[in-house]
Amino acid sequence: MLERRTPINVEEAIESLLKYKKTGTIETVEIEKATGRILGGNLFADHDVPLFDRSPYDGFAIRAEDTADASRENPVRMEVVSEIGAGSVYNQPIKENQAVRIMTGAPIPEGANAVVMLELVKNYEENGRVYMTINRPYKEGDNISFRGEDTKKGTILAEKGTYINPGIVALLATFGYKEVPVSRKPKVGVLATGSELLEINEPLAPGKIRNSNSYMVLSQIERAGGEGIFLGQLSDDFDLCFGHVENALQQVDFLITTGGVSVGDYDYLPDIYRKLGANVLFNKVGMRPGSVTTVAEKDGKLLFGLSGNPSACYVGFELFVRPVIRYFLNCPHLFVRSEEAVLGKDFPKPNPFTRFVRGEMTYSGGSVIAAPTGLDKSGVVSSLASANVLIVLPGGTRGYKQGMRVQVLLLDDQQGSEQFGNPFQKKESSEERMQLRE
Amino acid sequence: MLERRTPINVEEAIESLLKYKKTGTIETVEIEKATGRILGGNLFADHDVPLFDRSPYDGFAIRAEDTADASRENPVRMEVVSEIGAGSVYNQPIKENQAVRIMTGAPIPEGANAVVMLELVKNYEENGRVYMTINRPYKEGDNISFRGEDTKKGTILAEKGTYINPGIVALLATFGYKEVPVSRKPKVGVLATGSELLEINEPLAPGKIRNSNSYMVLSQIERAGGEGIFLGQLSDDFDLCFGHVENALQQVDFLITTGGVSVGDYDYLPDIYRKLGANVLFNKVGMRPGSVTTVAEKDGKLLFGLSGNPSACYVGFELFVRPVIRYFLNCPHLFVRSEEAVLGKDFPKPNPFTRFVRGEMTYSGGSVIAAPTGLDKSGVVSSLASANVLIVLPGGTRGYKQGMRVQVLLLDDQQGSEQFGNPFQKKESSEERMQLRE
Repeated sequence: MLERRTPINVEEAIESLLKYKKTGTIETVEIEKATGRILGGNLFADHDVPLFDRSPYDGFAIRAEDTADASRENPVRMEVVSEIGAGSVYNQPIKENQAVRIMTGAPIPEGANAVVMLELVKNYEENGRVYMTINRPYKEGDNISFRGEDTKKGTILAEKGTYINPGIVALLATFGYKEVPVSRKPKVGVLATGSELLEINEPLAPGKIRNSNSYMVLSQIERAGGEGIFLGQLSDDFDLCFGHVENALQQVDFLITTGGVSVGDYDYLPDIYRKLGANVLFNKVGMRPGSVTTVAEKDGKLLFGLSGNPSACYVGFELFVRPVIRYFLNCPHLFVRSEEAVLGKDFPKPNPFTRFVRGEMTYSGGSVIAAPTGLDKSGVVSSLASANVLIVLPGGTRGYKQGMRVQVLLLDDQQGSEQFGNPFQKKESSEERMQLRE
Repeated sequence: MLERRTPINVEEAIESLLKYKKTGTIETVEIEKATGRILGGNLFADHDVPLFDRSPYDGFAIRAEDTADASRENPVRMEVVSEIGAGSVYNQPIKENQAVRIMTGAPIPEGANAVVMLELVKNYEENGRVYMTINRPYKEGDNISFRGEDTKKGTILAEKGTYINPGIVALLATFGYKEVPVSRKPKVGVLATGSELLEINEPLAPGKIRNSNSYMVLSQIERAGGEGIFLGQLSDDFDLCFGHVENALQQVDFLITTGGVSVGDYDYLPDIYRKLGANVLFNKVGMRPGSVTTVAEKDGKLLFGLSGNPSACYVGFELFVRPVIRYFLNCPHLFVRSEEAVLGKDFPKPNPFTRFVRGEMTYSGGSVIAAPTGLDKSGVVSSLASANVLIVLPGGTRGYKQGMRVQVLLLDDQQGSEQFGNPFQKKESSEERMQLRE
């Protein structure tokens, strides 16, 4: 009567669904709209930076050789023969004991090979001519920003798949990208199932809960770089759900359903996958929460059956949906960023399966501390508020003590990790897994 | 001839401009548009969570007392008298040796006080009735999620000023916020000055550079939570610039200009402030880059005169503009998040003033490492690409060695810090500062 499912581990689950990953197309947006998008191509320098030898300061362009004997006692006097504002050019070579007043960013005139900062000299007029005196020697190249010293033409400054932040925007503008190639956002459909679900603005009723998962998942899709499309919430009715799933598949790049994937009598997703002829990649994962997370594939399109439980739904998204969104966006790092931290609190309860515990990561004296936020029953929604990491606690027979090294997954990070790999994961054999019970 | 300016330190500069901070109004947006906005009011629980005692699993609701003598040898048989799907209610109290089939999330029926997981029992039919057997005792409360156990009605779950991420969205949906109060984004005008500036899509020309600062600053405004308004780029012409600044002030909450704040002959901003009758709060800060950053106030409105140099402009924005944007948004933590890290590379060059060096923060074995990205000449744009922190190196006569503790400012963080405070800042007297030269 009860379907028995064989759990696979998280890494195997990810590997199985990544076989169906696909990349999206590239589109262009105005640079003003590029922040928060993903670069759709490599960003090249189209010219040397600086494009010409230029002055990093306000001052005077001189010939260093004229200052060889300059000292406090024996200052050198130079005639200021012209001035160059930023954006203008002086077209004559400067001669012995001549100087040119130069503004920050202006090109070094021909013949000059050093710049004296404005604050370090005196200048004055005498008989209608302008002079200045220098009281120390300069070397060739002093205070000059040389052509190409920052960046050589042709350099790749940021790779395809990079998240566009203000620093990248500065580069895009510098190198003439008025239109920026960006990865198209995948359309990710969200369909909630469950007769217990109320619309957010409906009054509460006995046995009912508001549909929080859909909005949470839409927000997670947005953070991951996708375009979430809310396709509605459905009561537990097979025909209704089937029709919606079948239609939804035509409209989206990926489809997420929430609820209905467990082994209860009203969990229709398994039957829906069957009727669709979809290929179920897995329907049980050795993890908490989210063990019933199911992923299926129909004609190469992925269907994610996330748990109706908010925490399980949240974790299921970050582990399984995020990587295919990031791949679609051409990101080289598909996985939520994984780093090591020091556990900030005991977590005594052992569990045979790997746990993903909501936690808050903080810094203290150069160390990274991660502590669970509140209770960790999987129905708990309030601990999501302050969570910025998932703490990975591999399954086993022991609990975890404060001070132990743990793996954390950084939820708000845009850089990601190339590998999901959990350095602490003890590989269990299938046989051992079979013996572990829910 | 040359204006002498007195530098103040960064903390004093921030303090002086925060006198003119102001908060913005609150508006509402649909929950689907709330991600990335700032909460405009406290988020309250409008009901207990769970709202009723409920089952966290698929299984059977029972009376624990009926199982007191259950064992493998002596299993207890119960009659399954009904079933409750999620979203429905069973209206009769259960009696001795009765069980009710219950789905995840469904309310515990009257009379029942424990739940047995579906996988742990056998059930079967006999003479048209359904039975199941239990082979161990249960305690009252086993496998029940109690009313209010997650969150009590009235609890503040997130405070006004909180950045809305997917976890907050889940809470908003749970507590009925179809419309979400959010802080209005301040309108921040950006006006670029400099005869050397080309539009991004113009061909390069001798002595000219493309205007990258405006787009960079617009992106920084967006990251900080404001609405950037690009008001154009102007050549160095006093009347032109004055007219635009005067008009711009009418349209925005804050005005940023880039360029023209130094002491060069084409730096017109000081004259513009004078003609406007604006109160210049400071025009020199003891920091690198960005020492010429100028902030003025006109009728209570702040004018930020950022340097035309890209790095100085970037740093000036994060240190001085970001806090007033965050205050406008009702955020409790005004400043870019400040944490401690271990310096990953030597930085040998001493500087009398505090430096803000672009760096990349990484993690290694539970520690936080921050290393400068590339050269740190202030004209360098390419090191912005991989920078995710500014490393704060207080001024002094010594350089910094790998392994030293340093303060870092986390650029992509949305949490912020309540204090700007630099724990390492040696407070210099005004006299000492006066002796320090550019």
